[in-house]
Amino acid sequence: MRIILVGYGVVGKGVTSILTQRYNEKVKDGFNPKIVAIADIDGAVINPRGLSPEKLDAIKQKGYPISADPEFGVPGIKALDVIKEVEAEVVVEVTPVNIQTAEPAISHITQAFRTGKHVVTTNKGPLALAMPALTELAEYNNVVFRFSGTVGGGTPMLEFAKRCLIGDRILGIKGILNGTTNYILSEMSQNRVSFQDALSSAQKLGYAEREPSMDIDGFDTACKTVILANWILNQKVTLKDVDRVGIRDVTLEMLDEAAKRGNSIKLIGSIDGKNKPTVKPIEIPKTSPLCVSGVLNAVTYQCQFAAEQTIIGRGAGSIETAGAVLRDLLDIRHKLASKLLT
Amino acid sequence: MRIILVGYGVVGKGVTSILTQRYNEKVKDGFNPKIVAIADIDGAVINPRGLSPEKLDAIKQKGYPISADPEFGVPGIKALDVIKEVEAEVVVEVTPVNIQTAEPAISHITQAFRTGKHVVTTNKGPLALAMPALTELAEYNNVVFRFSGTVGGGTPMLEFAKRCLIGDRILGIKGILNGTTNYILSEMSQNRVSFQDALSSAQKLGYAEREPSMDIDGFDTACKTVILANWILNQKVTLKDVDRVGIRDVTLEMLDEAAKRGNSIKLIGSIDGKNKPTVKPIEIPKTSPLCVSGVLNAVTYQCQFAAEQTIIGRGAGSIETAGAVLRDLLDIRHKLASKLLT
Repeated sequence: MRIILVGYGVVGKGVTSILTQRYNEKVKDGFNPKIVAIADIDGAVINPRGLSPEKLDAIKQKGYPISADPEFGVPGIKALDVIKEVEAEVVVEVTPVNIQTAEPAISHITQAFRTGKHVVTTNKGPLALAMPALTELAEYNNVVFRFSGTVGGGTPMLEFAKRCLIGDRILGIKGILNGTTNYILSEMSQNRVSFQDALSSAQKLGYAEREPSMDIDGFDTACKTVILANWILNQKVTLKDVDRVGIRDVTLEMLDEAAKRGNSIKLIGSIDGKNKPTVKPIEIPKTSPLCVSGVLNAVTYQCQFAAEQTIIGRGAGSIETAGAVLRDLLDIRHKLASKLLT
Repeated sequence: MRIILVGYGVVGKGVTSILTQRYNEKVKDGFNPKIVAIADIDGAVINPRGLSPEKLDAIKQKGYPISADPEFGVPGIKALDVIKEVEAEVVVEVTPVNIQTAEPAISHITQAFRTGKHVVTTNKGPLALAMPALTELAEYNNVVFRFSGTVGGGTPMLEFAKRCLIGDRILGIKGILNGTTNYILSEMSQNRVSFQDALSSAQKLGYAEREPSMDIDGFDTACKTVILANWILNQKVTLKDVDRVGIRDVTLEMLDEAAKRGNSIKLIGSIDGKNKPTVKPIEIPKTSPLCVSGVLNAVTYQCQFAAEQTIIGRGAGSIETAGAVLRDLLDIRHKLASKLLT
């Protein structure tokens, strides 16, 4: 399987790490991925015969710009042209998230679809703004579109719903889908610090960005809620359809009051199949399986037969999310092998 | 798909309920199950054209003996003969668990294999005593053997590991796999009652049997640990290979000491890939996702890439476990359709 990797940040490097590790460990499962190109904002490295693991290591260690590579570097070439011109089966899109325009990811993804390439992405932007259109476009072009790393990081929340609850019916979904806000709320309640102090501590630890709005105003959770609503409950919604409240106004007093009732306040993305999807801080019982602390993520599926099913894991991380990319690649390989395109 | 149902207790009735409900709700997923026979200890009802939902309802409401049915009843016929003589694709084996001899389930299962029938079971006995041999026998006879209801009830713990963590590697497993003992330990610690009082309360609520040894001496947890070890970690072990300690000797004082350290005592089945599987009461942090209360079950998979992944749900229940049977039937249907026999 020939792969074009678009974006070479934390997740992109995780992907090359995992593929190199599998190569070194001689994992034998019939899956032979070859990265034929890596594109970023400055250009690309391209080798139609596959960039060797040593080459990938060298690129990763040298850092930007990757297109300065003397052997295979192509400075200045645009990712859109790499996607169009380099022969490959799959494009892995892992550029930074942008929820205003979804660019450049959405152009990369549609370019891949138009040129008959399957797509794996960890980028929530295009899905949050245009998921119904993108899944239709993939279908129209008869290619597979996978994005399991967009929700739960390495925790297979989407796969669990699709693959493990077959024959059952999911009636509703509730989740703690953002590790940063969960860390902040846990810090406030466990160490009795203010929202501002907890945010600063999250920033110091690298859990929160310097511009933290994406997390604390609930946009990230809302993006993931949109993906769950479309993919699992077949709702045709986008980011603007979500009723969203962030955690800026959660106070220590509110946490104390909740605690008296045996509850914690968590930022919950919620879809019930009847109303608009919502994201807001709500009280949940401390004894609920959903009530996890720190940077953990958790999702509960309310099912017709199996009752409540909860999955918990880390919602982020370079290797974890790259593991989700690998799962998607294996899924595409399996689909191609059995000619069961969805 | 023609199905022979062997055993007509709590789970067997759940299976006919779910299939009838799907029929009434006109679920259209291309799966058309027909129950052609139900066998229990007194005889069977047999209709090669399929027992109608109304007939299944009538049988369920009338109760024992099912073979008294004037139209399709065959009093005295043995399940082994039904399995051999009635034409069907799948045998669903849901007779009571027996961990001394695994009978009569193990004979039913091997009879099904020998006559070329796929098997779905929720019965832990045969798997606990002879899982390596049974999976080999199924392979030899080129039939599918599925048992997702044996671990976690309706919670797809086995499927999660097999289907959602593809490309990753599971390094170890820890689980609260028995709801009765979890209820007893939760009662003791939350309501400060003795082991005996908590056991009585579990018996009153129907969570524990009058002969509670299977649960409280850890046999049930050990059976599930054996299944996880074989199916997920490819260990060829049976019940006798498990180091097992039950919860009879857990005292309020031990729970108090644990609580001082921020821990709870839970009966944990554990497999690390190096040592023998173990079942014993151990302390786990209250903040751990694995630390669930009441009758809930939980399992944590330690993964190479995705770190710790925890799934939580009810570990028992008629409809929940029957939902697991339905999942297995759909899986067999899918395998038959794609001719990908394992």
